Amino acid sequence: MSDESQELGITESKSHKPGEWYAEVVQKAGIADYAPMGGFIVTKPRGYALWERLQDELDGRFKETGVDNVYFPMFIPESFLEREKDIVEGFDPEVAWVTHGGHDELEERLAVRPTSESIIAPFMADWTRSHRDLPLRLNQWCSVVRWEATETKPFFRTKEFMWQEGHTAHASDEGAWDEVWTRLGQYEELYEDVLAIPVLRGKKPEHDKFPGADTTTTVEALMPDGKSVQGGTSHHLGQSFAEAFDITFVDEDEDEQTAYTTSWGLSWRALGALIMTHSDDQGLVLPPTVAPTQVVIVPIWQEDTKENVLEYSEAIAADLEAAGVRVELDDRDERNPGFKFNEHELNGVPLRLEIGPNEVDDEEVTLVHRPDNENVVADRSGLVETVESNLETIYDKLYAAAEERLEDNVREADSPEEIMGTIGKHGGYVRVPWCGDQACEEAIKEKVSAEIVMQPLAEEGEATTGAPEAPDDDDAECAVCGESADQIAYFAKSY
Amino acid sequence: MSDESQELGITESKSHKPGEWYAEVVQKAGIADYAPMGGFIVTKPRGYALWERLQDELDGRFKETGVDNVYFPMFIPESFLEREKDIVEGFDPEVAWVTHGGHDELEERLAVRPTSESIIAPFMADWTRSHRDLPLRLNQWCSVVRWEATETKPFFRTKEFMWQEGHTAHASDEGAWDEVWTRLGQYEELYEDVLAIPVLRGKKPEHDKFPGADTTTTVEALMPDGKSVQGGTSHHLGQSFAEAFDITFVDEDEDEQTAYTTSWGLSWRALGALIMTHSDDQGLVLPPTVAPTQVVIVPIWQEDTKENVLEYSEAIAADLEAAGVRVELDDRDERNPGFKFNEHELNGVPLRLEIGPNEVDDEEVTLVHRPDNENVVADRSGLVETVESNLETIYDKLYAAAEERLEDNVREADSPEEIMGTIGKHGGYVRVPWCGDQACEEAIKEKVSAEIVMQPLAEEGEATTGAPEAPDDDDAECAVCGESADQIAYFAKSY
Ligand SMILES: [Zn+2]
Ligand SMILES: [Zn+2]
Repeated sequence: MSDESQELGITESKSHKPGEWYAEVVQKAGIADYAPMGGFIVTKPRGYALWERLQDELDGRFKETGVDNVYFPMFIPESFLEREKDIVEGFDPEVAWVTHGGHDELEERLAVRPTSESIIAPFMADWTRSHRDLPLRLNQWCSVVRWEATETKPFFRTKEFMWQEGHTAHASDEGAWDEVWTRLGQYEELYEDVLAIPVLRGKKPEHDKFPGADTTTTVEALMPDGKSVQGGTSHHLGQSFAEAFDITFVDEDEDEQTAYTTSWGLSWRALGALIMTHSDDQGLVLPPTVAPTQVVIVPIWQEDTKENVLEYSEAIAADLEAAGVRVELDDRDERNPGFKFNEHELNGVPLRLEIGPNEVDDEEVTLVHRPDNENVVADRSGLVETVESNLETIYDKLYAAAEERLEDNVREADSPEEIMGTIGKHGGYVRVPWCGDQACEEAIKEKVSAEIVMQPLAEEGEATTGAPEAPDDDDAECAVCGESADQIAYFAKSY
Repeated sequence: MSDESQELGITESKSHKPGEWYAEVVQKAGIADYAPMGGFIVTKPRGYALWERLQDELDGRFKETGVDNVYFPMFIPESFLEREKDIVEGFDPEVAWVTHGGHDELEERLAVRPTSESIIAPFMADWTRSHRDLPLRLNQWCSVVRWEATETKPFFRTKEFMWQEGHTAHASDEGAWDEVWTRLGQYEELYEDVLAIPVLRGKKPEHDKFPGADTTTTVEALMPDGKSVQGGTSHHLGQSFAEAFDITFVDEDEDEQTAYTTSWGLSWRALGALIMTHSDDQGLVLPPTVAPTQVVIVPIWQEDTKENVLEYSEAIAADLEAAGVRVELDDRDERNPGFKFNEHELNGVPLRLEIGPNEVDDEEVTLVHRPDNENVVADRSGLVETVESNLETIYDKLYAAAEERLEDNVREADSPEEIMGTIGKHGGYVRVPWCGDQACEEAIKEKVSAEIVMQPLAEEGEATTGAPEAPDDDDAECAVCGESADQIAYFAKSY
């Protein structure tokens, strides 16, 4: 291989140095670059295309279920943010402060939004008069800034990140619960049906809720390095925000009532989870659902076969494109097939079609799956269907591998030593009976920096109101302190 | 009419108080609200839906013509902005400055991006090595902040506004010119084929170019109050940015060359132009191309006819929806048909279908066009095609009205008095021979605040390089100073 190929290829190992490997894949596969300011990144074309597909998928689901998109200002006056002090004890936001406009100092500092509750809620109050105005479901796609990140890790730790934030108001507690589960279910679908990542669905422990929320629900994804990623959260805010911001309405009987509100958000961290879950030491691996290019055709010719091979390849590219497949014909003269193979592997194209003179003569095509290099020789006739079913197979392979890893990595434990030993040895999740006391989590957290990332729910479905699953055994004891345990908790290290 | 209807309806007159009328339409038709900070607005569901449709249209055209979307940080370090001083004399940006992160003062102030040249250009330099990397075409959809606006006018004058900014690099001057015309042509298409607004296509005078640009091209739209709106601009930046930011490449002969760059942008001002152009004293008027709801069905029933009318209406709604028409069936019990008519007129639904017991008996439907209340009684059979052709007719009506206004409002003048008199009496554009001296523009601007908004191009099409049209007469004299005039200029008041 030439030096150029060396420079292109991934040099770090996913299993030995996952952090360095991840950073290298993100940069070399054209996903993102580091910005000149620490904590900020530049999202490059391939990375942004992934974000657009994710947005399309989620936004379509939101719209089908009654959500309206809006856009609120990126700045929030300091006095607005401070209203959250009524709801959240010890509220002290780590935000970016705008103090000057042009040459003049502002009379009041403006925060670059860290989240938009405090500026959206007053408008929700204004727009909610009658029960006929409810449910009110607003969402915005934007970026937010939190002045927290120290070391930059693209999509996982950045001071500015892109996300969507949904904010809704409902006439009843049940209406708000429905909303919470609808959105959590859509996040679950995004991971499982689009990103090929199985998730665990549950709630955060009481002491780790979104500030001001009644209940925070979450989907958690297991990364190959054994850490959990919080994939998206859906909060039941009860009536606390509605009371603080006066979101009230007149009901059917002309009585004034206080609304119930929710909020829910998913950030570009989902892109980080996507890249980290499937990619390998050759570079990016993507499920066909979100891959900007699903199929690359690499023609292999000598001077005397070039015309035939190219003509055959172009017809196939045209067929696939007409069928809606995102296909690229790589007919560059200045690169040899080997270089092209490496480059498209690096960039995560799920399916490669190799076409040489033999394929032309035999009216066949060779298909190569990116995740495992499986080769399939297929007939030219019916190729569109063959390609489509191979793309599905590739999706299924990726999902199955991630699912197996998740299933293999939920373990049980009876004592603090066993919790810590299991986390230390295997990573993954440790499922334990828990008394509900934050001190028991702290004891583990201090020593191995694993925490309770999730509690499975007592029941699934619309009816549930967020209660955690109870241990099977009525006499269950907390795995940390040995006191009586009435709930199940999952410990894990997390991003 | 009840008080509620009064509150809903538009009270200001478009012809007598266009400013107040515009503000009222924007608020009452659910387009936007004023934010608590002067200069900022909240874009409400109907307004944001319009922005999304506009984005889809433009973004699709960009992608078909080789543009990649990206996302750069919203902050730009002060030292980066200052590099533009090399290019732009007297550079002094009116920006929002972030000085603190959390409790700490930053070492270097960060500007909230007023435009992104200075942060994108260094990356373009980094990504451009060989002629094979060119053309490089990047675009981002984002909001920018300029600390200029005094009085807030939604979509026309706001400190934060949404836009897209395209940034490209090319191996040759001709490549850059092609790019400039491609984007200007797409802006023209957006206005003429999507927003039903004819535009004038031309260049800005030399003294009014984008800072650092070689040539600024523009599409200008005439508003009903006689003022011109700069609808979108496409800049040929020559090699000045490439030289300042070191955007160079190795050509086929292994020689290092400096690239040519362009930038081009269109903001939500296009929404302002859309609303202002077509709407009337009943409220919002929208072309069907961008209307979130294209067709509303209002059933008209008594207790004994309700079931039949609703059943008939539902079947029609289902047919239209299946054909891809954005249709809403307004079957609310608590509102009478008159109230519904007013509300949907206010909200700009282009076509109303009225269905009462007579329509059911006769297997007919009454169609009412929003712009002019034209009534059409149509057969139930073939209704989908009838609706689609009526939507096209509505588009054509809106375009024709705007086109007639534009054609009627380009006038000529021979003297400063005539220029000012014509602007004062009619508004619109005054087409004059001009010597090219900025002082001649200043003389007019000081007295009637009209300026040269556009100069038509000498030739249309790909070959042209931005030279302004010359007067027909070789001995033409500048309409202001009487000196020899070698170019044509359009004076107008502008937003
Ligand atoms: Zn315990
Ligand atoms: Zn002159």
